[in-house]
Amino acid sequence: MTSTDEVRRIGPTEPVWWGWGPASEHEPLPDGARALLARLGIPVRPTAPVGLAQVRLPPARLLAAARDALAAIVGSGHVDTHDEARIRHCRGRSTTDLLRLRAGDASAAPDAVVLPEDHDEVLAMLRLASRERIAVVPFGGGTSVVGGLEPARLAEQPMVALDLARLDALGRVDRESGTAELGAGLRGPRAAALLAEHGLTLGHIPQSWEYATIGGFAATRSSGQASGGYGRFDDLVVGLRVATPVGSWELGRAPASAAGPDLRELLLGSEGAFGVITQVVARVRPLPARRIFEGWSVPDFATGIRLLRTLAAADLRPTVCRLSDETETVGGLARPPRSAGPAAAIGTGTADAAQNAAQGGCHLVTGYEGAESAVERRAAEVAGVLLAGGARRLDAAAGPDWERGRFRAPYLRDALLDLGIFAETLETAGFWATLPALYAGVRGALAGSLSSAGLSPVVMCHISHLYETGASLYFTVVCAQGEDPIGSWRAAKAAAGDAIVAAGGTITHHHAVGTEHRPWLDAEIGDLGVDVLRAVKRTLDPAGILNPGILVG
Amino acid sequence: MTSTDEVRRIGPTEPVWWGWGPASEHEPLPDGARALLARLGIPVRPTAPVGLAQVRLPPARLLAAARDALAAIVGSGHVDTHDEARIRHCRGRSTTDLLRLRAGDASAAPDAVVLPEDHDEVLAMLRLASRERIAVVPFGGGTSVVGGLEPARLAEQPMVALDLARLDALGRVDRESGTAELGAGLRGPRAAALLAEHGLTLGHIPQSWEYATIGGFAATRSSGQASGGYGRFDDLVVGLRVATPVGSWELGRAPASAAGPDLRELLLGSEGAFGVITQVVARVRPLPARRIFEGWSVPDFATGIRLLRTLAAADLRPTVCRLSDETETVGGLARPPRSAGPAAAIGTGTADAAQNAAQGGCHLVTGYEGAESAVERRAAEVAGVLLAGGARRLDAAAGPDWERGRFRAPYLRDALLDLGIFAETLETAGFWATLPALYAGVRGALAGSLSSAGLSPVVMCHISHLYETGASLYFTVVCAQGEDPIGSWRAAKAAAGDAIVAAGGTITHHHAVGTEHRPWLDAEIGDLGVDVLRAVKRTLDPAGILNPGILVG
Repeated sequence: MTSTDEVRRIGPTEPVWWGWGPASEHEPLPDGARALLARLGIPVRPTAPVGLAQVRLPPARLLAAARDALAAIVGSGHVDTHDEARIRHCRGRSTTDLLRLRAGDASAAPDAVVLPEDHDEVLAMLRLASRERIAVVPFGGGTSVVGGLEPARLAEQPMVALDLARLDALGRVDRESGTAELGAGLRGPRAAALLAEHGLTLGHIPQSWEYATIGGFAATRSSGQASGGYGRFDDLVVGLRVATPVGSWELGRAPASAAGPDLRELLLGSEGAFGVITQVVARVRPLPARRIFEGWSVPDFATGIRLLRTLAAADLRPTVCRLSDETETVGGLARPPRSAGPAAAIGTGTADAAQNAAQGGCHLVTGYEGAESAVERRAAEVAGVLLAGGARRLDAAAGPDWERGRFRAPYLRDALLDLGIFAETLETAGFWATLPALYAGVRGALAGSLSSAGLSPVVMCHISHLYETGASLYFTVVCAQGEDPIGSWRAAKAAAGDAIVAAGGTITHHHAVGTEHRPWLDAEIGDLGVDVLRAVKRTLDPAGILNPGILVG
Repeated sequence: MTSTDEVRRIGPTEPVWWGWGPASEHEPLPDGARALLARLGIPVRPTAPVGLAQVRLPPARLLAAARDALAAIVGSGHVDTHDEARIRHCRGRSTTDLLRLRAGDASAAPDAVVLPEDHDEVLAMLRLASRERIAVVPFGGGTSVVGGLEPARLAEQPMVALDLARLDALGRVDRESGTAELGAGLRGPRAAALLAEHGLTLGHIPQSWEYATIGGFAATRSSGQASGGYGRFDDLVVGLRVATPVGSWELGRAPASAAGPDLRELLLGSEGAFGVITQVVARVRPLPARRIFEGWSVPDFATGIRLLRTLAAADLRPTVCRLSDETETVGGLARPPRSAGPAAAIGTGTADAAQNAAQGGCHLVTGYEGAESAVERRAAEVAGVLLAGGARRLDAAAGPDWERGRFRAPYLRDALLDLGIFAETLETAGFWATLPALYAGVRGALAGSLSSAGLSPVVMCHISHLYETGASLYFTVVCAQGEDPIGSWRAAKAAAGDAIVAAGGTITHHHAVGTEHRPWLDAEIGDLGVDVLRAVKRTLDPAGILNPGILVG
């Protein structure tokens, strides 16, 4: 067995090539959910992905000489040109990405997958790629949902995926300062396991946690479900080590500084367009001694928003806080299938959700992590605010139900795609004063666009990230696929993007820009902002080989 | 009376041209302080500033045509070329700045002071200056202590100060989101008064508060005495409006975003080199219902640092927290003269400080602001940690004493300069694990350098900004002036800068880069960091007229 074969060997936790998670974790949509889809008029049309052998790949454009030069840097066992490796590094995990893969379209696949061992190999690889004009796609977990792995390379330009999987070490742990050096290629669970050996945690658990990586979290400004307690990932970054085509760059000498602009903030969210993050020095906290999850019902979404604002203003944010709107409460996508009882709706359909829905309320999950006494006190204080504001406490299973199912949504999407049903998400954030109009505008734009295409959309929303000045909005859309699901979604997403800009929100709260949000970036950061990004790009990547067309183009 | 005369009319709260604060607030050094100086072997040599008429100004290089063109933009009453205006806009308020001014050296004075009314006038002025190659120094409170107002203009290049004093409006207050639009020229007290009318506060009170401005706070990444409760100023900035030579730039659409790099962080700390901040949208909080200040004695500085780390790790930071080392506790500069009792030492000499000094302890001030119950609970929790760690509570006057004197240090410096004594500060920050070595290294470098010049230095230090991962260190040096105080200080500061870099600290925690910290910027942000700043500068200020040589050059 060659090393290349080692790379190709797919472990039991690796995802299926056409979707999310390993096949062993897949399950069909519950009957109750199918019944709800029928009631909503969303037609079921079972659709299996093509076989791996049927997937269409573009001809590899990487010349043998370039391949040999890459192999000379990383070792021949770490340049993989097999079809499956190329397919597994083709695009990300947006629904349009999956629809294309399932249909056998891997036309955006890289010519090869290169797996450097360390920072210096990444540096050498970028130098070579600059000289040879090879496009390089930095690849962490491959979980982008914004086209961040589908660069706009020039015709005939070779392209390689730079897979950071081997940069997976936990480096120096500074217990006194509360920081740890984490390799960029560490996935969420592995990073958590390594830190847990020291009694520490990042507390960063986005939906994509199972596969997404430390480097990807930083490069896309990820935000996890526990952001209220631990902060967004950009808050957790103390230092960065970056390999660029023009050399190494290390930043982060102090907990705070006035030594000019904070250039870490230029690399956070840079999506591999300025350089490859190879190591993150992150803030780490003690593993929580106690964890509580609670379920609530609030009278309506507007009341819920006011309650969340009250909590944020009083510095009483729960570690986890997730308010579903009326539709999501009914649809139950807030609590995915593994937590479902027998009466499951689309996602959950526990007795609680059904009861909630019947009463017209909105589902709210609150979670607390930390020291025993702090957790109990915070939970009591938040409960005081919620009860005073008209919230009703759900039974004790409601919180833990949510926790059990917290990573199930992408599995549920695969089950829906298997039935020919479209499901996708998009998100934004706004100030409290703009939030109601932002919610109405985006919801209306999505529903309007998809309805006009005759697709019976269900548009659901939740708030899951609170700030003193505002909050995020996370929309989930479920609808029929129709004849052109990709085209229909692109139109709906464009309408939503315009609505976000019109209502004064941000085009993305935690999914990054990629190619999908690029049309609205000028509205977000201004023409001068785009000019500045271009100037930075020219300085760090003069040959323009890094993720061409991603973020800046 | 012309408008120009209006500009020249100096109000009763305006500072003396050669120092800090109005003459009415000046007072001689207390006798006890003079006695301590004598004991320390620091010679007193009374030295008055020269008269205004004796100050030497460079010939104005602004041609009449350019002056007329500027007047056409801002109105002839708002282009001031009088000597006093030029002198009042010459350099900042570092001790070397004051020594030069007091000696009649205003060789770095601008040729004129231009006072635009609004953002559009700033824009037009920058366009004109770019065309005519006039160097422009954005001027807020004029309180830079790092040479931030002394650009390296080319020989014969005209230079004007762009005084933002007229951009002093409170704009839209969004109570629901907790944000307010603040004109860049608003000084600390005026901004506070305007916000107080709405029951709101910024909570940003640096030492320079009386004169420093909103725009300056942002451009230099200021941090105030209450940073533990309200955050650094960069934390408070939600949005920015900036006039650049190539156009307007507005940033900040949401409480958090993943839409690429956070470009606000490129303007925070940009020190007028990339553009002129004309408005800040800042986070505002309700005026605190309760405010408590307490004084403590901890056994020694190392114990105090460990206690502060414990508080920070337990999320128990006081709103204000200030730990003096043994020398500062004795010297008493932690609590300046207006709070002093009859037995005053250099600064305070209250019975408490004297008692503390006699017992060899370190003085610690803790302050809490907020809602009644929250303040009392936090104070009790912190007290529990401090008492368990060996701290002793000082009498009830110790905290309020400190609060009363909190803005007096720069007045004290003037009193020392009047006696021919040198006093200056510098600051840094580091991670908890590096803090002891950083403290020892910088202290040793300052003491060693000044001692070798025969100047009997007293080097004091306090910690006043806590973070989860580390803290700031703020050094105050008092010594004889000797024959060449400016040269001696530059040598000492260079030694301190080298020591900071060697010990892994940041070259500045809240004073910015200016010209003084420029030699260490490469070590702080790397060669690539400097290249990136240059690229941004070229993009936004292609003619290089904005603060040449400041930050980048």
